[in-house]
Amino acid sequence: MLTCVGYAASSPTSPLAPFAFERRDCGPLDVQIDITHCGVCHSDIHTARSEWGPASYPCVPGHEIIGHVKAVGPDVTRFKVGDRVGVGCMVNSCRTCASCEAGLEQYCDASPTWTYNSPDPAFPTEGAYTFGGYSRAIVVDEGFVLRIPENLDPAAAAPLLCAGITTWSPLSHWKIGTGHRVGVVGLGGLGHMGVKFAVALGAEVTLFTTSPSKVEDGKRLGAHRVVISRDEQAMAAEANRFDFILDAVSADHDINAYLSLLKQDGHMVLVGLPEKPMSVGAFSLVAKRRSLAGSAIGGIQETQEMLDFCGQHNIVSDVEIIRMDEINQAYERVLRSDVKYRFVIDMASMPDSIAG
Amino acid sequence: MLTCVGYAASSPTSPLAPFAFERRDCGPLDVQIDITHCGVCHSDIHTARSEWGPASYPCVPGHEIIGHVKAVGPDVTRFKVGDRVGVGCMVNSCRTCASCEAGLEQYCDASPTWTYNSPDPAFPTEGAYTFGGYSRAIVVDEGFVLRIPENLDPAAAAPLLCAGITTWSPLSHWKIGTGHRVGVVGLGGLGHMGVKFAVALGAEVTLFTTSPSKVEDGKRLGAHRVVISRDEQAMAAEANRFDFILDAVSADHDINAYLSLLKQDGHMVLVGLPEKPMSVGAFSLVAKRRSLAGSAIGGIQETQEMLDFCGQHNIVSDVEIIRMDEINQAYERVLRSDVKYRFVIDMASMPDSIAG
Repeated sequence: MLTCVGYAASSPTSPLAPFAFERRDCGPLDVQIDITHCGVCHSDIHTARSEWGPASYPCVPGHEIIGHVKAVGPDVTRFKVGDRVGVGCMVNSCRTCASCEAGLEQYCDASPTWTYNSPDPAFPTEGAYTFGGYSRAIVVDEGFVLRIPENLDPAAAAPLLCAGITTWSPLSHWKIGTGHRVGVVGLGGLGHMGVKFAVALGAEVTLFTTSPSKVEDGKRLGAHRVVISRDEQAMAAEANRFDFILDAVSADHDINAYLSLLKQDGHMVLVGLPEKPMSVGAFSLVAKRRSLAGSAIGGIQETQEMLDFCGQHNIVSDVEIIRMDEINQAYERVLRSDVKYRFVIDMASMPDSIAG
Repeated sequence: MLTCVGYAASSPTSPLAPFAFERRDCGPLDVQIDITHCGVCHSDIHTARSEWGPASYPCVPGHEIIGHVKAVGPDVTRFKVGDRVGVGCMVNSCRTCASCEAGLEQYCDASPTWTYNSPDPAFPTEGAYTFGGYSRAIVVDEGFVLRIPENLDPAAAAPLLCAGITTWSPLSHWKIGTGHRVGVVGLGGLGHMGVKFAVALGAEVTLFTTSPSKVEDGKRLGAHRVVISRDEQAMAAEANRFDFILDAVSADHDINAYLSLLKQDGHMVLVGLPEKPMSVGAFSLVAKRRSLAGSAIGGIQETQEMLDFCGQHNIVSDVEIIRMDEINQAYERVLRSDVKYRFVIDMASMPDSIAG
C-alpha cells in the first residue's frame, strides 16, 4: 500500500487540512500517478461542504488532475513510466451498459465511480469512498487515464479535465462549427472554456454576461461579440439569432430570456446546475421548435479527443496557481467569483508528511 | 364577392351566433371551397374568448376544415372543381424566410397568416382579420390547400388538420419508428392522435394518463401499455426507459416526473401550451443529456405527407359530430374534457342565411 498525503475536509464546516491515507498498490491494469497539479472546481466545495447531499468524511476533493506516471501494472498497455497524464471526474464505471459501451461513461446506468467521495466497489481496501486529487499520488485503472499533450502547460491544462470537457462535450455532440452562431452564457471557469472552444471550432461566438467589467476579457478570450444580459434592449436585438447557446451559469437566472434568442430548431444546453428548478415557458419552446437540454462532463474517449484538440490548437485554461495551504482562502474566492478563471494547486507545495 | 354565413363570437363573453360576411373572389391562385365539416379545437375557444390576447370581433373560429373545391382561379394547377380538400391552421405565410423555404411555414419569421383572427396583409378587402372554418365557404391560396384521401371519412378526417399534424410533426421530425419506446402524455384530442400515429409508425407506445377510466380506451386506440401517472410507484418503474415522450397536456403538470423517464439522449416534446411556466430541474436534463423541446402544428408539405400516410393506413380521429347550433354547448363540454376525442361540426347544419 502506498501512504499518501492529501488535504481533506473532516466535516461539512471544517476547513481542509493535511490528511494521511493509503492508496492501493497498482493492480494489473492500474497506473500510479505522481500528481503535479490539481484544479479547484466549484463541485469540490459543494461536496466538501455536503451541499449536494451528505459527503463521506474525511473528504479529499479534486478531479482536475495532472501528473506523471510513476508505475504501471503488468497488463497496462497504453501508458509507461514518465508519461504526462491526467485524470478527470471519473475513475471507473460499469463498462457494460449502453452508455459505457457508447463511450459515455458519465451517463453509466450504475453511476460511474467518481474520482472522489464515491463508493468504490472495485477496491474497498482504499476505503469505502474514493479520495481525489488534492494529494501527492493516485492509482487509477488505465481505462480512465488520459494522455496530456506535452506542449501544454501542465498547470493550465488541469482544468481541461472538468471545465474543459464539460463545455467541449456539448459543442462536439451538437456538431458546432463554422457557420454557427453560438452564445455562451456566463464567464467563469466553464464559460471561459466554452468561449475558447466555440471560437476554435469556427463558430461566431457571443458572450452573455451580467458584468460590464467582463466585456474586455470576453473579447480577449476570443468572443466576437459581448452582450450585457441585463440590458433588455440589447437582449431583444438578439432574438431568433442563435443556433446554439451554452448556458454555463449555476446561479438562478432567467432561462426564457435566452430561449427566445434561439432560431428555429436551436438548442440551448445547460452545463451548470442551478439549485432551484428553472421556470420555463412552453411558448418559448413551441414557437420555433427550440430545445433545452443538459449535458454532464464527457466520456473518456471524447475527453482524449478534446485534449488532443487542445494540443493541436494550444488551448489551455486561464489559471491562478496556488499553494496547497492556500486552498481554504481559494474556496472563499471561488464563492465570490473572484478568480480568472480557475485556481490550480501546485502539488509541489503539499507537505511530504503530516506534521506530528 | 361571396356572401358567406358563419358562426361568430362578437365579444369575449358572448356565445357564438350566426354572422354574415363576405369572402374575397377567387384570385388567380385561389381555391374556393365549400366546407362540409370543421373540427372544434380548444384553440378556437381560447381565441374566441380572448384568452390568448385580445381577439378581433366578430371572430369566426375553425381551422380543421374539410370540403370540396367549388371554383379555382385561372392559375391554379394543383386542384380542380370537385376535389376533396382541407385547410388547417394557416392560409398564407411570407414564403421567403428560411422556415418557409424549408417547408415549415408555421415557424415563419413574419408569422404565418392564421386561418382565423389573423391580420391578412394580402387581402385587406376580406376585413382586417381572417375568418375561419365555422362557415359555409372559404377562399384560400392553393399553396395552403391540402388534398384529402378519398377513402377517409370526411368528418373524422377534419381533426387531422390540427390535432393530427400537431402530433405527427414531432414524431416525424424526431424520426420515431420501429424499435423506439414512445410515451404519450394525456389522452385528449392531441394525445389520441399521438397514440395512433406512434403505433402506426411502429413504436412501442405507452400512454400516461391521470384517469384509470382511460386505460381501456388507450388500449383500444392501440397503446401497448397504459401507466396511471398519479401512481408514483408505477412511474418510478418507468425511469430511464423512453426514447421519446410526446407531452400533449395543456393543463399544468409536473414535467420533471416525465423527464426522468427518458433514457440517455431522450427527447420530450411539448405540443400543449400550459399557461403557467413549467418548473424544470436542471439535474433532470443534465443527468442523461435529455432534452425538452416544443413543436407547433406542422408545415404544409408535412401535413400532406401525414394525410397521405393516413390514407394508406386508414387513420382518422375519433369524433363526435354536432350541428352548428350546438357549438356553445360543445365548448362547455370541451372545457370539461367531455369529448371522445374531437367535436366536428356538420356544415350542412349551417343556416343558408341570417334570419332577419
